[in-house]
Amino acid sequence: MDALDLALEEGGFGAYVAFGNSQDPDVLYLTRFSVTDPVLYIRRRGERGVIVVPQMECERAAKEADAVVISREEAGFFEIAKEERDSWRVLARVIGRQVPVGPVLVPASFPYALGSELAREKQVGVDRDAVHRMREVKTAREIGSIRHVQHACDRAMERALLVIRKAKARKGLLFQGAVPLTSSLVRSAIHQVLVRNGCIPGETIVSCGEETAMPHRRGDGQLTEDEPIVIDIFPRDQETGYFTDMTRTVCRGEASPEIADMFRAVRDAQDLASRLIRPGVPGADVYQAAVDFFREAGYESGSRGFVHSLGHGVGLEVHELPGLGPSGGELKENSVVTNEPGLYYPGTGGVRLENTGVVGRGGFSSLTRFGRDLVL
Amino acid sequence: MDALDLALEEGGFGAYVAFGNSQDPDVLYLTRFSVTDPVLYIRRRGERGVIVVPQMECERAAKEADAVVISREEAGFFEIAKEERDSWRVLARVIGRQVPVGPVLVPASFPYALGSELAREKQVGVDRDAVHRMREVKTAREIGSIRHVQHACDRAMERALLVIRKAKARKGLLFQGAVPLTSSLVRSAIHQVLVRNGCIPGETIVSCGEETAMPHRRGDGQLTEDEPIVIDIFPRDQETGYFTDMTRTVCRGEASPEIADMFRAVRDAQDLASRLIRPGVPGADVYQAAVDFFREAGYESGSRGFVHSLGHGVGLEVHELPGLGPSGGELKENSVVTNEPGLYYPGTGGVRLENTGVVGRGGFSSLTRFGRDLVL
Repeated sequence: MDALDLALEEGGFGAYVAFGNSQDPDVLYLTRFSVTDPVLYIRRRGERGVIVVPQMECERAAKEADAVVISREEAGFFEIAKEERDSWRVLARVIGRQVPVGPVLVPASFPYALGSELAREKQVGVDRDAVHRMREVKTAREIGSIRHVQHACDRAMERALLVIRKAKARKGLLFQGAVPLTSSLVRSAIHQVLVRNGCIPGETIVSCGEETAMPHRRGDGQLTEDEPIVIDIFPRDQETGYFTDMTRTVCRGEASPEIADMFRAVRDAQDLASRLIRPGVPGADVYQAAVDFFREAGYESGSRGFVHSLGHGVGLEVHELPGLGPSGGELKENSVVTNEPGLYYPGTGGVRLENTGVVGRGGFSSLTRFGRDLVL
Repeated sequence: MDALDLALEEGGFGAYVAFGNSQDPDVLYLTRFSVTDPVLYIRRRGERGVIVVPQMECERAAKEADAVVISREEAGFFEIAKEERDSWRVLARVIGRQVPVGPVLVPASFPYALGSELAREKQVGVDRDAVHRMREVKTAREIGSIRHVQHACDRAMERALLVIRKAKARKGLLFQGAVPLTSSLVRSAIHQVLVRNGCIPGETIVSCGEETAMPHRRGDGQLTEDEPIVIDIFPRDQETGYFTDMTRTVCRGEASPEIADMFRAVRDAQDLASRLIRPGVPGADVYQAAVDFFREAGYESGSRGFVHSLGHGVGLEVHELPGLGPSGGELKENSVVTNEPGLYYPGTGGVRLENTGVVGRGGFSSLTRFGRDLVL
């Protein structure tokens, strides 16, 4: 009996119902079926999940999905569609046929149009976290998938740093031969490595100089000497759907004393957090330890300095449970989380280091094996 | 006044509210802001949209977003969070502060957890199609974006066909030198071209032989001679977020007479549809014309043969309005749609041809400029 069965049992729900395509990580997690158009997922209490798919997907779903497959036709979709004009109403009635008994549990992200139709006939409860809590603790297979995509990510980072190291500097600007070395050239080099390794690149950050003070600025234009370059890569494995997340900050040439100090503080904060992260420790405590550490080093947290949380879970989403911010709960064994302290000062720049790793009894076991050197 | 203002006016709504990150195409369309964590979008009747973002995103949002930017702090988020334990309740109260007057309109995909909280205090209506109808008609700039990603897609298809053409056949199997030529090798070649051209690959289909009878089977294993190979590419431009969608079916060597006949029927159906697609014509009529054409050629539609619709809109989603299936409504000038007839027979295989183009007064104006030859 998993957490979802338990939530159904405890709340007296007849079934859990989700609706989405495999972009919806809950749907992908529960069905393991990769699909562009949304499917209906229904899990009656104590039974195996059922997915309702278009006829054209039936054969593939039977091979690929971890669920009982029925076609829209078999679910009565077309029969009901003759009587109802509204397509959400049709879906609500299809669900009604599949779940004759009891109230229905839906994910928080369930489409309001469908939920409010369902609520006209049935009691509808929102699953606040059963599925997210299931996803929060990874199986050995899932950890293997994240390790695999992290390896590709390491190779991509290696390529990026090689490109920057090989660049020539002229009047403070970096060049690749005669061509200006831009964020977008480095990003393209990263993405080529990722794609060759079966990954789908995300919106990779290669920001430089003043831009780095904005943590999520993607980066634009020519890279410069002696300024921080933040490279944040979060690809998804095309085969498994799992993400990883990694950041390094480098300088081609000399780092300013301010940036060098920030870098040391961030690196030490990361090491401190690696020791503190373990099962049973609240994410909030690890975050607070980083805040305290930064304060003693002379850096504030909040709207300047350390402006984001210390980390987040990684899996079928780049950001998932657990959180390592002010409200982060107890960490669980075999969660996969980032450890990513950062400092940001407009006018000076930003520094971030980010590893992804497993919450283990011996502490944070990094899946990221890449070095942390500021100066290239 | 756009369709959304009109929907607010007509329904007497105080505001339209959405909640999502830029993976949500409605949110990206309305805000033009690329972001991983969800933002709250609020458009009061007759006013410019507002987005509520974390402090760390404020500066970037002010530069990038097509909306008035306020921080969570300014929106009262943290003040309310002290009084409420449930995070959806906090968001609902933040919305309540921003929209003091009138019922609220939300997208169909609005999270049920938030919608049902909101509904405790305010009337909540579902926008069935105002934003989707806005997205359905493209601006010249949007068409330019789709043309741009289609060019990259054409180049990727060219590379795929070159790889297949150059392969050596031995005992019916294709080889690249000594290495078996697999679906995954061809997919990787396609993705490298896409990435070099600034695109994020989707789950590209390279299926062969029996697999091709399942329209959305991704494809696995070694490619074979004399059998249909279906290549379906639907990348997204990393810069603009726009998709395109393209399919070709090819045979290395000889096609069986059945496949050759199916190919001719599909190609002729595509040409027929290209002439019929124009503003004012219902998508359902174009679909029906293809069904009729196939029937006369001896092919059924429904659970075998022509098993999917004739096409769909393409934009910030791969599948969006309008539909060219049995229930497709009137086509509008400057929609961008696919024209993709296909035939699928287990035991024989599948054939699909897919172009993406603009619904113009002179008919379907294809953005796909790639030839349609079955035999390589």
